Amino acid sequence: MSKKLTSRAEDYSKWYNELVVKADLAENSAVRGCMVIKPYGYAIWEKMQAELDKMFKETGHENAYFPLFVPKSLFEAEEKNAEGFAKECAIVTHYRLQNDPDKPGKLRVDPEAKLEEELIVRPTSEAIIWNTFRGWVQSYRDLPLLINQWANVVRWEMRTRLFLRTAEFLWQEGHTAHETKKEALAEAELMNNVYATFAEKFMAMPVIQGLKTESERFAGAEETYCIESLMQDGKALQAGTSHFLGQNFAKAFDVKFANKEGKQDYVWATSWGVSTRLMGALIMTHSDDHGLVLPPSLAPNQVVIVPIYKSEDDLNAITEVANGVLSDLRGKNITVKYDNRTTRRPGAKFAQHELQGVPLRIAIGARDLANGTVEIARRDTLTKEVVTLDSLNEKIEALLIEIQESLFKKALDFRNEHISEVDTFDEFKSVLETKTGFISAHWDGTNETEEKIKTLTKATIRCIPLEGEVEAGVCVYSGKPSKRRVLFAKAY
Amino acid sequence: MSKKLTSRAEDYSKWYNELVVKADLAENSAVRGCMVIKPYGYAIWEKMQAELDKMFKETGHENAYFPLFVPKSLFEAEEKNAEGFAKECAIVTHYRLQNDPDKPGKLRVDPEAKLEEELIVRPTSEAIIWNTFRGWVQSYRDLPLLINQWANVVRWEMRTRLFLRTAEFLWQEGHTAHETKKEALAEAELMNNVYATFAEKFMAMPVIQGLKTESERFAGAEETYCIESLMQDGKALQAGTSHFLGQNFAKAFDVKFANKEGKQDYVWATSWGVSTRLMGALIMTHSDDHGLVLPPSLAPNQVVIVPIYKSEDDLNAITEVANGVLSDLRGKNITVKYDNRTTRRPGAKFAQHELQGVPLRIAIGARDLANGTVEIARRDTLTKEVVTLDSLNEKIEALLIEIQESLFKKALDFRNEHISEVDTFDEFKSVLETKTGFISAHWDGTNETEEKIKTLTKATIRCIPLEGEVEAGVCVYSGKPSKRRVLFAKAY
Repeated sequence: MSKKLTSRAEDYSKWYNELVVKADLAENSAVRGCMVIKPYGYAIWEKMQAELDKMFKETGHENAYFPLFVPKSLFEAEEKNAEGFAKECAIVTHYRLQNDPDKPGKLRVDPEAKLEEELIVRPTSEAIIWNTFRGWVQSYRDLPLLINQWANVVRWEMRTRLFLRTAEFLWQEGHTAHETKKEALAEAELMNNVYATFAEKFMAMPVIQGLKTESERFAGAEETYCIESLMQDGKALQAGTSHFLGQNFAKAFDVKFANKEGKQDYVWATSWGVSTRLMGALIMTHSDDHGLVLPPSLAPNQVVIVPIYKSEDDLNAITEVANGVLSDLRGKNITVKYDNRTTRRPGAKFAQHELQGVPLRIAIGARDLANGTVEIARRDTLTKEVVTLDSLNEKIEALLIEIQESLFKKALDFRNEHISEVDTFDEFKSVLETKTGFISAHWDGTNETEEKIKTLTKATIRCIPLEGEVEAGVCVYSGKPSKRRVLFAKAY
Repeated sequence: MSKKLTSRAEDYSKWYNELVVKADLAENSAVRGCMVIKPYGYAIWEKMQAELDKMFKETGHENAYFPLFVPKSLFEAEEKNAEGFAKECAIVTHYRLQNDPDKPGKLRVDPEAKLEEELIVRPTSEAIIWNTFRGWVQSYRDLPLLINQWANVVRWEMRTRLFLRTAEFLWQEGHTAHETKKEALAEAELMNNVYATFAEKFMAMPVIQGLKTESERFAGAEETYCIESLMQDGKALQAGTSHFLGQNFAKAFDVKFANKEGKQDYVWATSWGVSTRLMGALIMTHSDDHGLVLPPSLAPNQVVIVPIYKSEDDLNAITEVANGVLSDLRGKNITVKYDNRTTRRPGAKFAQHELQGVPLRIAIGARDLANGTVEIARRDTLTKEVVTLDSLNEKIEALLIEIQESLFKKALDFRNEHISEVDTFDEFKSVLETKTGFISAHWDGTNETEEKIKTLTKATIRCIPLEGEVEAGVCVYSGKPSKRRVLFAKAY
């Protein structure tokens, strides 16, 4: 292991960047803004994928795969969507390289191999998918279409950060088609609920469900549901969105169906997605100055066993005990790794597992063997205790549940402490500068006020919460009437 | 369901294209050469992925993710590899669209947003991965690196066919780095073995393992192992390849390590991949004029239950029995679907499940209830039998195993009958035109002879088999000395 992490108090942003790299989660690549997701980071993403995929299937969705490229003429068909993504698109214009006549051994784009129509690398797939759906829907019998895709997408962002904002990222995008507006709205809500459940149950990350304001909606959506979470530095992070698309895409791509009365009607749509950005959210919800802290539900290794030995004989005796523990824990579906590498000393192993957030570490030494005990170290609290071998299995099971719950509770307490109800703009600015977090304030409902507050404070409306009491009041900025409080915050 | 399939005898190629579309596996998209993989096709691919991924992990590999794009300067670093793929590359040259001043509502590529260096959409990832490996390897302690990636790749093929040859396809690509040549060679062989095991055990598709000749090797490889299978029309299909890359990429990307003696040395490499092309191989190994035939190991639904009823009461009574069967079979890890759609008649359901290759269909009617029986139909043999409810579970379990084995045996018999040993070039041509299949013949080992035979007959050397007796002889074309027989065939 290399030098210590920058502390969060010192520089949160630097702490994050260092942690991602040092914990072997991801690194920057030779391609501007594109990351390499390293095996340890990818293993966490795979756990997220597996849980989400299960939840999608349990709610009736099927996976499919659509092309990476969108021909320009399809891309521009839904105007708002096109406008929203046009400025950050990677565009394929040619399909062949040739030897560069001026530079031996080098290649250049073959000018003869220009595409007739440019292809956009998908920033999102509504266009290509709705163009396909046209062939899949004739009658109400073909509806609903409940499709999900796991894919890579590209948005040519100017300022990128590992996991949080990268030019290429991995995500899933759900795309559904329905007979009625009501059904499509219910689907958009359902999937936002699925995201909230996933975030809270598996990521141990509390979220607030809400609706986006018009200016923050997905380009082409009529309503955007979202889950908003709060990071340790008091900035909010949009962790997932689910869009009600109305009939916009059906009209742009002429997707009609014969309804039960035999009349032709346009289909109603939703789309919804979460991405590798969740990795950033996970890190900034739980980790500390020692490194990553992982909820057991998403940890690639929930438990690691480190042998402490001087002689070969000691190691053999420890390995025998460790093998018994491994087999017991695996029988309980606990992922556990025996770290018997001979190329690293126990201290280096401890440091690595701490940095990488392994929830529980078991150390077994020669003296433990004599006593019939082992030492368990908890990553979240950094506490250690000695337990007897015969109580170990139950203890581990209980601790994993406890850690999962405790991480959630800690994050929830922090989040709840950082929702400040304010009624004046001075208070608004002061909370934003000192306490940080979400600000619950009245807003007059206009784009102008939203925009002005953003310009003055960098805070945006994160969402109009779905839950909680609705009370009328006056806008914290304009003093005009407000129907309800909304949540502001500075955000990632 | 629409009209009947073209028969295989009538037009094998047309049969294939129709089957892929009618069985809802895939379809062509609006993007030239790119396919849409439909949910039913994708479900089969997911089963393949799951089994392969498990086998990769069991052999010590970890998944990671590398960028979609390769900067041109990296792409051209390993010359042979670059040369092999330069002619079929999708190239990103711009990163922004703008409103077209000449066409309101339309977009055009923003000429100001030209990339300084063009990006190649990965046709394979050796370049970007080896450029990354440089940072991961310092000493022998960091080796071996055993990495796999599940990803999309793009090769701008001029003639495309669903699954078999598409501009974009899905695959996995393994990339490993080793201390010694011996270890890297062993890895390349091991992964070719993994592919062979997967093909035979899960796809029920017999394969021949062998080495490619120099002209058929992967661009940049020193040795290419492959698994070759035989399709029903007598053409061969390369189902997977595993490459020993020597130190070519390590040298091109300067990936050195300190060996155990403390000296700097270049790392030894392998790469290996299988793709959605396997879907084409699966289809052309087992399917018939009625549609898809799937081995139970890869069938999204191994069993489907269709209720046959006239009254609501009948349906309720059948559903009660069906629910018991569902729960029993699911308890045995058998995937089973109850097709109680009210929008389709039993006949239409039978036709659909036949076309989609569901291995076993259970029909339950009112009369069955009275008799305590159900009817089971086998997709592979198209035979039916009536069995009692109390023997059903065991029967289904036994039949699924029997079908898996029987499909493999049938394909193996067909393949073995279609390996012809020939000793004259007249015989060679005659077998190729009439009997088809693999031809085992002597070859003088030169590129020239290989090329001439290809020009004259369209047959290529599929592989130099790893197994079987090695006997010297004379080349079937040139009459020159030959060390051993190799396998020729026309191929996909």
